[in-house]
Amino acid sequence: MTDYKAPLEEISFVLETISSMKEWDKLPGFEDASEDMVAAILDEGGKFASEMIAPTNGPCDLFGAKLNDGVVTVSPELDPIHKAYVENGWNTLANNPEFGGQGLPETLSLAFAEMLTSANMAYSLHWILSNGAVSAIQAHGSDAIKEKYLPKMVSGEWSGSMNLTEPAAGSDVGALKTKAEPQEDGSYHIKGQKIFISWGEHELSENIIHLVLARTPGAPEGTRGISMFVVPKYLVKDDGTRGERNDVKCVGVEHKLGIHSSPTCVLSFGEKNSCVGYLVGRENKGMANMFTMMNHARIMVGLQGVSIGERAYQNAVNFAAERIQSAQIGSKDRSSVAIINHPDIRRTLMTMRAHIEAARAILYRNVWAIDQAHKSTDEEAKRLALGESDLLTPLSKAYATDIGCEVASMAVQVFGGMGYVEETGVAQFYRDIRIAPIYEGTNGIQALDLVGRKLNMDGGEHWKHMIAEIKAFVQSMDRSLSGQKEGLSEGIKALESASESLFANGFEGLVDTAAGATPYLRLFSTVVGAYLLAKQAVIAERRLAGDEGNPVFLKAKIVTAKFYIEQILPTAVCLLGPITAGADRLYEIEEEGFLRQG
Amino acid sequence: MTDYKAPLEEISFVLETISSMKEWDKLPGFEDASEDMVAAILDEGGKFASEMIAPTNGPCDLFGAKLNDGVVTVSPELDPIHKAYVENGWNTLANNPEFGGQGLPETLSLAFAEMLTSANMAYSLHWILSNGAVSAIQAHGSDAIKEKYLPKMVSGEWSGSMNLTEPAAGSDVGALKTKAEPQEDGSYHIKGQKIFISWGEHELSENIIHLVLARTPGAPEGTRGISMFVVPKYLVKDDGTRGERNDVKCVGVEHKLGIHSSPTCVLSFGEKNSCVGYLVGRENKGMANMFTMMNHARIMVGLQGVSIGERAYQNAVNFAAERIQSAQIGSKDRSSVAIINHPDIRRTLMTMRAHIEAARAILYRNVWAIDQAHKSTDEEAKRLALGESDLLTPLSKAYATDIGCEVASMAVQVFGGMGYVEETGVAQFYRDIRIAPIYEGTNGIQALDLVGRKLNMDGGEHWKHMIAEIKAFVQSMDRSLSGQKEGLSEGIKALESASESLFANGFEGLVDTAAGATPYLRLFSTVVGAYLLAKQAVIAERRLAGDEGNPVFLKAKIVTAKFYIEQILPTAVCLLGPITAGADRLYEIEEEGFLRQG
Repeated sequence: MTDYKAPLEEISFVLETISSMKEWDKLPGFEDASEDMVAAILDEGGKFASEMIAPTNGPCDLFGAKLNDGVVTVSPELDPIHKAYVENGWNTLANNPEFGGQGLPETLSLAFAEMLTSANMAYSLHWILSNGAVSAIQAHGSDAIKEKYLPKMVSGEWSGSMNLTEPAAGSDVGALKTKAEPQEDGSYHIKGQKIFISWGEHELSENIIHLVLARTPGAPEGTRGISMFVVPKYLVKDDGTRGERNDVKCVGVEHKLGIHSSPTCVLSFGEKNSCVGYLVGRENKGMANMFTMMNHARIMVGLQGVSIGERAYQNAVNFAAERIQSAQIGSKDRSSVAIINHPDIRRTLMTMRAHIEAARAILYRNVWAIDQAHKSTDEEAKRLALGESDLLTPLSKAYATDIGCEVASMAVQVFGGMGYVEETGVAQFYRDIRIAPIYEGTNGIQALDLVGRKLNMDGGEHWKHMIAEIKAFVQSMDRSLSGQKEGLSEGIKALESASESLFANGFEGLVDTAAGATPYLRLFSTVVGAYLLAKQAVIAERRLAGDEGNPVFLKAKIVTAKFYIEQILPTAVCLLGPITAGADRLYEIEEEGFLRQG
Repeated sequence: MTDYKAPLEEISFVLETISSMKEWDKLPGFEDASEDMVAAILDEGGKFASEMIAPTNGPCDLFGAKLNDGVVTVSPELDPIHKAYVENGWNTLANNPEFGGQGLPETLSLAFAEMLTSANMAYSLHWILSNGAVSAIQAHGSDAIKEKYLPKMVSGEWSGSMNLTEPAAGSDVGALKTKAEPQEDGSYHIKGQKIFISWGEHELSENIIHLVLARTPGAPEGTRGISMFVVPKYLVKDDGTRGERNDVKCVGVEHKLGIHSSPTCVLSFGEKNSCVGYLVGRENKGMANMFTMMNHARIMVGLQGVSIGERAYQNAVNFAAERIQSAQIGSKDRSSVAIINHPDIRRTLMTMRAHIEAARAILYRNVWAIDQAHKSTDEEAKRLALGESDLLTPLSKAYATDIGCEVASMAVQVFGGMGYVEETGVAQFYRDIRIAPIYEGTNGIQALDLVGRKLNMDGGEHWKHMIAEIKAFVQSMDRSLSGQKEGLSEGIKALESASESLFANGFEGLVDTAAGATPYLRLFSTVVGAYLLAKQAVIAERRLAGDEGNPVFLKAKIVTAKFYIEQILPTAVCLLGPITAGADRLYEIEEEGFLRQG
C-alpha cells in the first residue's frame, strides 16, 4: 500500500468547474480531448503515480545522488519508472504533434504532472526541466535544431536541462559570465561554470540536451547581452544518433536539505576548450527566450506546492484517523478517540485542505488561460487569456509554494514526534518542498514581478479584469454561501484598494511598491483562492440540490470554501495596512543597526 | 570565526527593561547578583558559547548519534565542551546552594541558556533535561534521594533524563503502561519501554539519572495512577560512588529531521527483570511532580525558538550584507548592491528581528515572574507572579517555537539556493528547530492549556491583570510612539474581546473554545510581544534623548517596535473572528469527507 492516492475526484471537479474541461474538445487542436479520453488518461496516470512511482519516494531520498568521476548515479528504483514513463508516452501529452507529441491541453498535462509530482517530486523535476528545454527550442530554435533534438526530447528518450545560474549570478541572471566563442562552422565554443543545475548530469537517459545562457564576444552588459545555446552532453550525428562526448562535465553535486534524488550539479563547460554549442534564436536574445520557458517552469514549481501539500495532507488525515489519543473534549465519555476528532487537529486539517484546494484552483485556472491563449479562435479572448495567465503566474508560483511549505509543516505537526523521525516520510515532504519558494525565481522575485510588471501590464487591465470578475460573482451569489458573502466582499475591497494604491505609486514610488510586494501577493492569491473555492462551492450546492454526484465530496467542497473565507481570508485582508505602509520604516535602521553587538 | 555572536547588548537591555535586572540583588538570596557580577557572567558565557561551542554545531550534526550494542556515541567535539561546561560550573548558576548551586536568578540562567542554545541546540537540550530532573527531585524527592543524586547532578557530573512517552502515550501521558513492582527493600522493579527519550543514553557523563513515570500495581487508570521513579543508569553506592549497571538499555536511536547530535532513545527498562527504581514523592502523584518540571522545560523549549531564531537572523544579516545582486530599486545607479538594500530583503530581516525580540521579551518576563514567585518577600506579589508565569508559559513555549520555525525558514529564503545546500548551515537551523513546536507538549496542547486552564485560573484574574497592565501602559505612552498608539489599542481591544468571549464559553462551550485556541494563543502572544517591545522603545527613546547608551542600538530598538506594531500586530488582530467562530464548521465534514477518492 502507498501513502498517496491520486485525488481524481477533486482534480476532475476542478478541471470541470475551473478549467472548462467539458469544452476542451471544441477548441481547434484539442479535438481528441473528449471527456472519456481525459478520464482514461487521468485514471491511468493516477495509477502510475500512486501505485508505481509513489513507493519510490522514500528509497530515492535515502539513496540520494552520487558523483563519481563525472558520473552521477541516482537510485536504481528510478530505472523502471523512467522506462515506463517514456515507453507509455507520458511525456508526449501536451507536446507538439509535429515532433511526436499528442497535442493535448496543457491543463490535462498539468493534472498528470500534479500526480507525478506528489508521487516523487525529485524525479518529476527532471521532466519540468526537460520540457522547459523543449519549449524553448520549439519557440526559438532553427528548423535544423528542432529536427535534430526535439523528437527524442518530446518522447523523453533524451533529457534537457536549464543552465542559468553562476556563483555571482542568481536572481540577477544578467551578471553571468559564461562565454561563447563563434567558430568557423557556425557553432560556438562554450566556456564557463554553471551551478545549481537540476538533473544536470545523470544516466537515466542516453543523452542530455543542455540549454545554456552565455555571452558572445562584445555582447552588451547585463541581460541584454545574453544568448542561448544548445549544448548536448553527447554530440548528435547528422543521422540523429548519438555521437562523441561533448566537453561538459559534472564537477560537483550539492548536499541538500531535500529532493535528494534530484542531482543538483555544478557543470563545467569547456575545460578542454572544446565544448560545442549551437545558438538558439538570435544573439543577445537569450534572456527573452528563457522567459518563454521560465513562465512554464514557474507554474510547474508552484504545482510542487500543491502536490506535496496534497500528499502531506493525505498522510496527516490517515494518521489522524488512526492515532488514538485522549478523550473527546466536552464529552462525558472519557475513552480515548482518534485525534481527527480533536478540534485543534480538525482546524489543522481544514487549513491544509483549504490552502491546497485554493492553490490548485489558481494553478488550474492559470494553465487553462494558457491553453486558451494558444488555442482560442477569438483574438481578443486570446489576448485577455494571455494577460490573465501572466498575471496569475507569480501567484501560482509563490502562493502555492508558500502554502506547500506551510502545509507540509502542519503535517509534521499532526504526526507529532512521529513526524520528526524520518521513517514516517512526512519530514521528507517538509525538506523537499522547501526548495520550491527558492528556485525558478524566489518568491520575493515573484512578488516584484507581480507589482513591477504584471500590475502595470496593459495599463492595469488584467488585475482590474480579475477584480471585476470576482465582484460580478459576488453579486450573482444569490442565496448561495450567504454567510460568506460579506467576507468575500471584504476581501475584494482590500484587494482593490491595495492594487490601486500600489498602481498609483508609479515609477517614482517603486520602492514603496516593492516594500509591499510580498504581502500584496499573498492578499491577491488569497482573494482569488477564496473566489475560486466559492465558485466551486456554488456549483457543488447546485449539484447537491439536484442529487448529482457524490454528496460526501460535494459537501466537503462547500465546507472547505466556507472555512477558507471565514478563517483564512481575514488573515490576508489585514495585510492591506502593511502592503500600503511604504518603504520608509524598512530603511530607518542602518546596516550597522542590523548587526548584533557583544 | 564563528557565525554566531552572543547578542549581549540586546540581552542586557532586555534584562534591564523587562526583567528588572538592576533590582535583583535586593531580593533575599540574590544578594550576589550585582550588576557587575551579572555582566561578568554574561560576558564569559557569551565567549564560551560563541567561541568554543558554536563552531561544534555543524560537525555535531554531521556526526549524529550512533548506537552500538546499547552504547550511544555522539561527536567527539562534545567531549571538551562538556568537560569545560561542568568544570567551569555553568550548570550551577541558578541551582540550589544546598546541593552546590550558586542560587543566582533563573533569569540570569535563562540568558546564559539562550546563548548556549544558539551555539548548539542539540547539546543544550541535554542540560534542559538534566536540570528538569534536578528540579523534580529537589521538589519531590526524599532527603535520602536528594543527598544521593543532587550534588553530582547540580555540578553536571551526572546527567538526567525524563521518561514519559510510550508508543501509545504521547500527548496523552495518562495512557502509559510501564510498571513498577514494589520490592521488600522499599525499592521498585521497573518494566516497560519508553520512546523519544532525549539524551536517554550517552557516554558524556559517568552516570545518567532517569526519571521514569510508571504505574504501581492496582493504580487508578489515567493520569491519577502515575508515579515517578528515579532509575539510575548505574546504581549508586551508599558512599555516593558509582556501582553496578542497572537493567536499563538503549535499544534504538531515532533517525530524525534535525538535532542529530541529541540521541533520541528508545529505552528498555527491566528486560532482565532487575531494573531498580526508587519512588520520588508520593505514589500516584507522578503526574503532578512532572508538571513541576514540565513548566520549566516548556519555557526552555520556547527559548530554543529565540536562540535558533537569533542565530538564523545573524546569519541572514551577514549574508545579506555580503551578497551582491542586482541594482537598487528606484535608483539611477544600475550597479549591483548588497541584497540587504533591497526592500523585500529588509522586510524579511525586520520581520525576523521583530519576532525574535518580541519572543525574547516574553520569555525573559516569564522567567523573571518565576524568580519573583520564588523570592519576593510580599506574599501577594508572589501569588500574582506565579499566576503570571503560569499564564505566560504556553505563550513562551508555542509562540517562540512557532516564530523560531518561521524565522529559520526566512533565513533559508534570504540565502536563496545557498540556503538549501547544507554547507551554509542555515538548513540545519531549519531542521533543528522544527522539533520545538512538537516536544514538551505540542503547540496545540499549549493552546489548550492556555484556554482550558490558564484562562480560568483564579477566575480569570491573571489575563485580566495582563490586559489592564497593557492598557495602563498605552494610556501612559504620551508622545512616545504616537503613530503606534492606535495599533496597540486595536491589539488590546481584540485580545480583550477574544479573551472575554472564550472565557464566557465556560465548560459547556469548551469545544468552541478549543477550536479557537491556536489563533488565540497567537493573538495573545503578539499583543504581549508588541507591548513589551513598545515598553523597550519608550525607554530607548528616553535614553536617546538623554544621550545615554549606543544610539545605533537604541534607534534600532525603536524602529523594531514600530515595525512590529505596524506590520505584525495587524496579522494577529484579524484573528479575532477566526478565534470566536466556534467549532461547528470544523465538524461539518465527516471523517470520510477528509479522505480523497480516486
